Amino acid sequence: MDLGIENVLLNGQLSNIYVKNAKIEYIGSEKKSAIKTINAQNKAAVPSLVNGHTHAAMTLFRGYGDDMKLQEWLQQKIWPREALLTPEDIYWGTKLACLEMIKCGVTLFNDMYWHNREAVKAVEEMGIRAFISEIFIDIPGMQTKKHDEKAQEALNDFKNYDPRIKLTLGPHAIYTCETQTLEFVKTFAQQNNIPVHIHLSETKKEIDDCIAQHGKRPVHYLEEIGFFEADVIAAHCVWLQNEELDILKQRNVKIIHNPIANFKLAVGELLPYTEIKNRKIPFCLGTDGCASNNNLDIFEEIKFAALVHKWKINDPTIMNCNEVWHAATTTAHKIFDIDAGEIKQGKLADFLLVDLNHPQMVPCHNLTSNLVYAGNGSIVDTVICNGQIVMENRYVSGEEEIILQAKKVTKKLFSR
Amino acid sequence: MDLGIENVLLNGQLSNIYVKNAKIEYIGSEKKSAIKTINAQNKAAVPSLVNGHTHAAMTLFRGYGDDMKLQEWLQQKIWPREALLTPEDIYWGTKLACLEMIKCGVTLFNDMYWHNREAVKAVEEMGIRAFISEIFIDIPGMQTKKHDEKAQEALNDFKNYDPRIKLTLGPHAIYTCETQTLEFVKTFAQQNNIPVHIHLSETKKEIDDCIAQHGKRPVHYLEEIGFFEADVIAAHCVWLQNEELDILKQRNVKIIHNPIANFKLAVGELLPYTEIKNRKIPFCLGTDGCASNNNLDIFEEIKFAALVHKWKINDPTIMNCNEVWHAATTTAHKIFDIDAGEIKQGKLADFLLVDLNHPQMVPCHNLTSNLVYAGNGSIVDTVICNGQIVMENRYVSGEEEIILQAKKVTKKLFSR
Repeated sequence: MDLGIENVLLNGQLSNIYVKNAKIEYIGSEKKSAIKTINAQNKAAVPSLVNGHTHAAMTLFRGYGDDMKLQEWLQQKIWPREALLTPEDIYWGTKLACLEMIKCGVTLFNDMYWHNREAVKAVEEMGIRAFISEIFIDIPGMQTKKHDEKAQEALNDFKNYDPRIKLTLGPHAIYTCETQTLEFVKTFAQQNNIPVHIHLSETKKEIDDCIAQHGKRPVHYLEEIGFFEADVIAAHCVWLQNEELDILKQRNVKIIHNPIANFKLAVGELLPYTEIKNRKIPFCLGTDGCASNNNLDIFEEIKFAALVHKWKINDPTIMNCNEVWHAATTTAHKIFDIDAGEIKQGKLADFLLVDLNHPQMVPCHNLTSNLVYAGNGSIVDTVICNGQIVMENRYVSGEEEIILQAKKVTKKLFSR
Repeated sequence: MDLGIENVLLNGQLSNIYVKNAKIEYIGSEKKSAIKTINAQNKAAVPSLVNGHTHAAMTLFRGYGDDMKLQEWLQQKIWPREALLTPEDIYWGTKLACLEMIKCGVTLFNDMYWHNREAVKAVEEMGIRAFISEIFIDIPGMQTKKHDEKAQEALNDFKNYDPRIKLTLGPHAIYTCETQTLEFVKTFAQQNNIPVHIHLSETKKEIDDCIAQHGKRPVHYLEEIGFFEADVIAAHCVWLQNEELDILKQRNVKIIHNPIANFKLAVGELLPYTEIKNRKIPFCLGTDGCASNNNLDIFEEIKFAALVHKWKINDPTIMNCNEVWHAATTTAHKIFDIDAGEIKQGKLADFLLVDLNHPQMVPCHNLTSNLVYAGNGSIVDTVICNGQIVMENRYVSGEEEIILQAKKVTKKLFSR
């Protein structure tokens, strides 16, 4: 075996897990020989987490402009500074993001940001999985190449990357992309079997502007142009009516829920949880970027989601800990078609060892409750992705250098 | 000097802090000799935090009964098991709570729970500060001694404890205390200059029942019986109308805001922030007990508060990071009349060193923003209370034993 995790708590029982060729080869009471063995006493094995929507390198903007109205924040703070980002910034910003996500138990994230080849390089080195968007945006000056060239180049380039990294097409949003851009992306995505990652129905302004411009709400507009014929992953989905939800269900759209960013930017609504649950629309959680969260700890997002829906619906029994944990692990991996999210023989070896002696994990009446309501990223001791250890005893190889370089590039970026 | 913190970031500048006789003796560029010196490079000194309302030993119930309606949760889960608590349980449960709070940067907490002399012992040993309630409750079987005996005994006993520990009187709530009990507590508290700690206006049921029984809302009822003539610290304060807020202001009542517990139990309302701010009513934050949170990380509560008010009021600019951080540090210490909450010469030496190389603290455009929106308890490296180091490099003396014993007593408690 390549890796053995011995004496670990798994589904309530002490067990041993062995990994071979990136997959879980054996789970049971037997001990086997392995190249590397971890004694996981006082640790539990749980599936690793997915950050379903983020802008990884925005770590460099953490805490740069808070407590502002969305448009002012974008126009005065974020966009002018983003225009100065270099490939080196993106590389170290993404490395920092990966470091933070690994420390919080994430082995797969769905990214949309600039200079994405540098993000690819960072993720390849950090050993986790990512879906990386090629962004499409029709704001003058923000994109130089033609859409079709951009798409074709990305398709070619991504064939050469580690299979842990997958391409998505990322038309930013309906309010930043022309109709023909959305149509082009849909067609190219369909032809080449690439998922599409888009921001959808995040703010009331987006709805109002869409009605003014197209005479209908965003989902109806996208349905009309056939956009949902592609495999669409839609982030936010806050301002939705029942008819729109029916379309999303019918078209197999997957939803990424980012409640912390929605609250921080005060978007005024919340994902229509009951309606989504009734329709069995798959959803998982995302942190959004560090400029609107301001961290990448998906544990925090899981707890936040469970709490805000209980309060809004006025029922403490809804979105219980099993349900939200399932969404963040099993459903999340299904959404991205990665064969993990459960610790079972034959699955990809993407999982965590969490520290059962962490003060916030003691006592342990109910592990899932502790994961959801008591813990945060700091309970994660060891992270395994694709059969490789990417963090052990909370240490990630090269972390000091990442912190150093991230500080350096930030200083340069903000003195440009 | 007793303690020196050298090369530390303080208010944006590198500085040195020296402590003598539990107070901050010197802050500045000079280096002085001290019995113990910490080189705090890449760390920032910030005031320590206050947990304004909790039930510390309920750590033992962490994750025991979640996602339930409040009354069922209390009646089916919490109360039957609380009846079996022993003094030993309270001792180790409070030790665990102190350990967790120290790890999250708390040096002062306001507690209300059973077998409080054991809580005192735990806090004395752990080196932090606490306000410990003597509980008054008129539910048959939950309290054996007469109120006046209980109060007098507590008053006598607490004179012998470490001055870090102070007595409060804790009439549980208006719905668990008779009018004459509330009147007795008020009088005894006034005569002996002891603060009063009570749950107030937490649920709609409390309001409805109070109107049915007394013909008026809770604050009007308490005002009528003169309760607010005492020095009152009121937890929750969710269901309040403007007239009630006027009374709270006039009577100098201090409010503890526990938004996570309010959301988890789906109380359906939220602290009326704007109205409280307009009236300049002092408030700080509390985690409530671990059965309804389920941790004691006040950093999480600070972020949660800032986000939920922005979303509810539909304005991302309100409760900004400076304001909520001030509430959780400076205001919080003022509420409890402890001369800390700011790092200044002459103040008590209660402060934290936070790790500026923690991935969630990088980069640092704005330290307060990072403290509020990016960090959680795990950014705290060193905790100083009353001039003594209670945590250094995230290690608390005796922590392994606390984890072990807390697990043991929980096992015994749940097999009784």
